[in-house]
Amino acid sequence: MFEKIAIIGVGLIGGSIGLAVRKNRLAAKVIGIGRRKVSIDRAIRRSAIDAGTLNLKQGIKGADLIIIATPVDKVEVKIAEVAKHAKEGVIVIDVNSTKQRIVSSAERCLPKDMFFVGTHPIAGSEQAGVFSSDAELFKGSICIITPTLRTDKKVLEKIKSLWKNIGAEVRIMSPKLHDDTVAAISHLPHILAYALCNTVSSKELKMAGTGFKDATRIARSNPRMWEEIFIQNQKSLLKSVTVFQKNLNAFKDDIIKNRRTSLSKRLILAKRKRDVLG
Amino acid sequence: MFEKIAIIGVGLIGGSIGLAVRKNRLAAKVIGIGRRKVSIDRAIRRSAIDAGTLNLKQGIKGADLIIIATPVDKVEVKIAEVAKHAKEGVIVIDVNSTKQRIVSSAERCLPKDMFFVGTHPIAGSEQAGVFSSDAELFKGSICIITPTLRTDKKVLEKIKSLWKNIGAEVRIMSPKLHDDTVAAISHLPHILAYALCNTVSSKELKMAGTGFKDATRIARSNPRMWEEIFIQNQKSLLKSVTVFQKNLNAFKDDIIKNRRTSLSKRLILAKRKRDVLG
Repeated sequence: MFEKIAIIGVGLIGGSIGLAVRKNRLAAKVIGIGRRKVSIDRAIRRSAIDAGTLNLKQGIKGADLIIIATPVDKVEVKIAEVAKHAKEGVIVIDVNSTKQRIVSSAERCLPKDMFFVGTHPIAGSEQAGVFSSDAELFKGSICIITPTLRTDKKVLEKIKSLWKNIGAEVRIMSPKLHDDTVAAISHLPHILAYALCNTVSSKELKMAGTGFKDATRIARSNPRMWEEIFIQNQKSLLKSVTVFQKNLNAFKDDIIKNRRTSLSKRLILAKRKRDVLG
Repeated sequence: MFEKIAIIGVGLIGGSIGLAVRKNRLAAKVIGIGRRKVSIDRAIRRSAIDAGTLNLKQGIKGADLIIIATPVDKVEVKIAEVAKHAKEGVIVIDVNSTKQRIVSSAERCLPKDMFFVGTHPIAGSEQAGVFSSDAELFKGSICIITPTLRTDKKVLEKIKSLWKNIGAEVRIMSPKLHDDTVAAISHLPHILAYALCNTVSSKELKMAGTGFKDATRIARSNPRMWEEIFIQNQKSLLKSVTVFQKNLNAFKDDIIKNRRTSLSKRLILAKRKRDVLG
């Protein structure tokens, strides 16, 4: 499918893509590009990449697909570097969980003979690093792809195939709809989990059961990454938080005013929605 | 340890106590009391009880320990029935997740020669029913016991031993402190999970990943049970919700005002707290 794939950033997501691509023989060669030698060595030991380098220019040389899988705050810098050094006709994708800003930045920054597609695999865990990577990470998960009017149709098809081939179900939406959607289903739950942890005292925390643990597991995620996501996607996130606050206040009001029928309806609606997910 | 234990309500918790008591040979006989014949039959097939009946008076006859494990809204009615029919010297416990109301009601209702102790095993799952019961459900979990000035010391020791013997770590606190604590670590997460489900549209829900699923798993719990818990523990719960709302607004403010240092501190604090739980 590809001659040479360069993965910039070989952490959990970059490493898992490497493993999946190699397992499914989707590229003749997979090169990892990292910031520290130890990360590259780990990725090679993990068999996530064929070879690796700390030198981005050298690593992406001749690549026909470049995957930017660095932390959120580094994506735009990497796109700028790719713009300078990648070969004509190259396809560039990212795997970032915010899209409007990255996609418009990439389309502004990359020359006309380089093709960008924004993608966001909704997979991962609170565990970071290439040691947690897994060739099956994307199996059965959803990958949202966010083309724009400027996206090349053939390139889009090729990137759809790539994600399908490593197990993901592909959904197509605009960067804006993407950001609103993930604000609701991912960024909102994260901010709630973080705020919930800060609400509970250390003494109370000792009594926590599996319910609390499940509900707050995502607050174990990387704080720096989430700081960046919350800031980048603030517009959509703040809208979601406001809707959530209205819903929480509705519960609160029902409880204060002892409105059992209304409270019961709200609880049943919520359970019904959640039950759909299994 | 006991001659005859009567368990009123053989669902997940009642059934699991039955299984654990029988496995650890803590009673000569375990009788289940249910509202429907089918529940009793299931509990017997599951080996959670030695025998069962629909007749409370008959079921508790001669019991030296009565465990009330019915849904929250039935506990007070059952205590009143027990008060009429149980034998002198009997120990009565409940397993309910709110304590102030139940404990004071029991102490008001039971005659002087019957001994009540409020207990709350922090275990369970969003699954209900005796088929989900498990002799190991309480292993490594916490059971909060809430004695008052009226609690008999020897009886308290005996109930502590019972819970320890079926695997729980026992914590002693007042009914008031219990209700405040579980409001924060259990009731608050539940109301947030329910409100979160109601915030997300059915279309958005289709994109949900494991993070959302984990964060909202507790919203699959029984709505009727949670309606009752929210109403019974409203004072402590509303206090917790208010503290949570302040925390969430602090996150929101930091994001709106781009205060990265403050936002970062909040995220790191939350992660540090959550990491303690593993």
